[in-house]
Amino acid sequence: MEQTTQRPWEVLRELVEQDQAEKLEAFLETLDTNETVRAIFRLSPDEQRKLLLTISPQSAAELMEDVPDSHVAELLDELEPEEAASIVTEMDSDDQADLLAELDSEDVERILFHMDSEDAADARKLITYPADTAGGLMMTEFISYPDDMTVKAVIQDLSTRPDDYALYNVQYLYVLGKTGKLRGVLRLRDLVFGNPDLPVKKVMAPPEAVPVSASMEDLGEFFDDHEMSAVPAVDERNKMVGVVRRRAVYDALAEKAEEDNLKARGIVGGEELRSMPVLTRSGRRLSWLSVNVLLNILAASVIAVFQDTLSAVIALAVFLPIVSDMSGCSGNQAVAVSMRELTLGVVKPADAMRVLWREIPVGMLNGIALGVLVALAGWIWQGNPWLGVVVGSALALNTVVAVAIGGTVPLILKSFKVDPAIASGPVLTTITDMCGFFLVLGIATLMLPRLIA
Amino acid sequence: MEQTTQRPWEVLRELVEQDQAEKLEAFLETLDTNETVRAIFRLSPDEQRKLLLTISPQSAAELMEDVPDSHVAELLDELEPEEAASIVTEMDSDDQADLLAELDSEDVERILFHMDSEDAADARKLITYPADTAGGLMMTEFISYPDDMTVKAVIQDLSTRPDDYALYNVQYLYVLGKTGKLRGVLRLRDLVFGNPDLPVKKVMAPPEAVPVSASMEDLGEFFDDHEMSAVPAVDERNKMVGVVRRRAVYDALAEKAEEDNLKARGIVGGEELRSMPVLTRSGRRLSWLSVNVLLNILAASVIAVFQDTLSAVIALAVFLPIVSDMSGCSGNQAVAVSMRELTLGVVKPADAMRVLWREIPVGMLNGIALGVLVALAGWIWQGNPWLGVVVGSALALNTVVAVAIGGTVPLILKSFKVDPAIASGPVLTTITDMCGFFLVLGIATLMLPRLIA
Repeated sequence: MEQTTQRPWEVLRELVEQDQAEKLEAFLETLDTNETVRAIFRLSPDEQRKLLLTISPQSAAELMEDVPDSHVAELLDELEPEEAASIVTEMDSDDQADLLAELDSEDVERILFHMDSEDAADARKLITYPADTAGGLMMTEFISYPDDMTVKAVIQDLSTRPDDYALYNVQYLYVLGKTGKLRGVLRLRDLVFGNPDLPVKKVMAPPEAVPVSASMEDLGEFFDDHEMSAVPAVDERNKMVGVVRRRAVYDALAEKAEEDNLKARGIVGGEELRSMPVLTRSGRRLSWLSVNVLLNILAASVIAVFQDTLSAVIALAVFLPIVSDMSGCSGNQAVAVSMRELTLGVVKPADAMRVLWREIPVGMLNGIALGVLVALAGWIWQGNPWLGVVVGSALALNTVVAVAIGGTVPLILKSFKVDPAIASGPVLTTITDMCGFFLVLGIATLMLPRLIA
Repeated sequence: MEQTTQRPWEVLRELVEQDQAEKLEAFLETLDTNETVRAIFRLSPDEQRKLLLTISPQSAAELMEDVPDSHVAELLDELEPEEAASIVTEMDSDDQADLLAELDSEDVERILFHMDSEDAADARKLITYPADTAGGLMMTEFISYPDDMTVKAVIQDLSTRPDDYALYNVQYLYVLGKTGKLRGVLRLRDLVFGNPDLPVKKVMAPPEAVPVSASMEDLGEFFDDHEMSAVPAVDERNKMVGVVRRRAVYDALAEKAEEDNLKARGIVGGEELRSMPVLTRSGRRLSWLSVNVLLNILAASVIAVFQDTLSAVIALAVFLPIVSDMSGCSGNQAVAVSMRELTLGVVKPADAMRVLWREIPVGMLNGIALGVLVALAGWIWQGNPWLGVVVGSALALNTVVAVAIGGTVPLILKSFKVDPAIASGPVLTTITDMCGFFLVLGIATLMLPRLIA
């Protein structure tokens, strides 16, 4: 059977070429999220376009929800605004806002122009909220009832609109006062077990809500502390404006963590996939590398100052990269722990001194262990114990410096509102390199008579 | 007002000393998760113990749920097994299993001994499942009904057990056949809008379930593809054994991502908080550093081979750490992108060649840019353009090597079942260092006459 050995993207390409909408949709159903994403990005831009236009707008919208936000723009770029609009219309408003936030404002306007005017107005309003706040993460679709409606009447109304119910994946209904102010929350169980003739305000739970300006981190905290799957967002007059789903918040937080991780390793902007154009990828990486190379040259200039010592004891040149690398490693461990503790919220910028006192003993222990190892290597290799003493003691001291700086730099950067994910590494390695080169060559200069004996 | 300037942990300490259970519980209620964790770990072990024993076991259990898994063991260690058991009993079974997985088996047995025998049997069973599978993540509490019970009878039964309902935060009820086989799922809305006299099997939805052995990654996929807040887990005979909550899966995945991030930066075991003992922290970091220092010495030994060249052109010593650091940076960017693509599932180990071809152009562009910068620095500093040519071309070539290795090493390690998070960095830097030193000093040796001219 030749069919069974085909890879998913090969099948997809074939079905796209054959223009078979139903078979395509059925095939996409069989793929999980990862397989879908992998397969789509193996297709050429033309094939991607054809795929999106062949399947129904609903299916295309579902497909879009699987694709990482950063790539959605790439796919939409292939379509005419009208075509894109027909797909965007089918998405939940929170997903719409996420997607539109990835496009530039001209493209957004072109797409909104072709959407239903009410939907477009909603979307336009949503994208005015910062993407990492409740406003940017919420959906505007929710079901609400006036507070004096009876339980019976609400159940009656609900039973006539099963579609809305399924569409919004409703867990909660909201009870609003006359002017749209949030009065309470109804779970289905409150209706089922409540007296049918009472007004809903007698059976509703008091509202837990978040301000529309709440930050992503605050929302994360909120959902950690509350078992709810969604929370209403209210404006400054307590008017309900949308619903933030737990899922949207957790997805956004996970994306942020992933971005920070990439930034820490030198991917500016916090995202890259290899399907992006070479020049974009190269440029983003280079913007970080080029700062780094300048800092590196600055740090290495310390070596130039000690050229005479280095000429006299050329073996030292072997140990300079070792001290540089190892101090970088030790310091980076401390950076990683501080970044994690910042994320968990167990340290704040003001705790820098406490972090320092907790790092120094670790630095001393590990500095001694690494120093002894390197000292032995130096002694055995050159037969001169003093070479070992010089490089070992320099590494030991510099390890303490590295963990002290690595532990505190993220906190200090954060208190100066500099993104610690991207700046901690370069700051750390520049200081530890300079200090490490100075220690190796400085101590060697002091002990020069013993080294060349 | 002196009170208002006190930090939360100071208030907490005071209340603990005063032995005020109610005030303590009320105060803890006012703290969010992060503040709680931060405050607890400022207390001494004795104070922590006293805190846990002063408040009610329910409150203590809630508190435990806020604390990162890795630290729960530390807190429980302070308590007698009987005291710990009274707290553990109050937790949901999935949280219980998470917590017990952090203790060594003797401690687990001592705690289980003091628990209700049924609860203990459940917990004992749960911890036999691997922690990163549906079995390890599920809770065993769920509400089920036989498939021939009527809608009316189910609603009647539910209304008599509001506590169970709230306790399990139930979204779904399960319909089981005679032998416990899963037949279907009931949402409350199915009951509300269903005919009260029908048996539930007529109104239930067909069951979506996962095998108890499903991996964390598969569960993540499942919840990405399904809007449900919980999924039933079944054994190989389709008997329902538990419920996996979306939240448990997302928490576990986020923890895994964070662990991988820490491992990549040299924290073996994937977790460290500064409240851990110094020796533990030092040891975990050192286990990675000591391997690294040996690899570093190995790499630097390449320099020793070219001592004569280095003596002749001592300026080269300045550029060796620059080439080593910059290649490490470039390679690490590629590692980070590969790790992300592995997590997203857009590459597999078999795609190594494709990754290679996508990295090489980026490496060439960035290599040329960085090479030119370093070449200019060398030329200007020493006034000899040939020094610039040597170090610039070596860095350019080595950048290509670095991104090629950085991009593919995580995939290759994964295909050999080695954890790419922890091993990619050391493998990368060892190879790029050796290659970088060889290129700088090898090219310099070839061009020695021009360098010393």
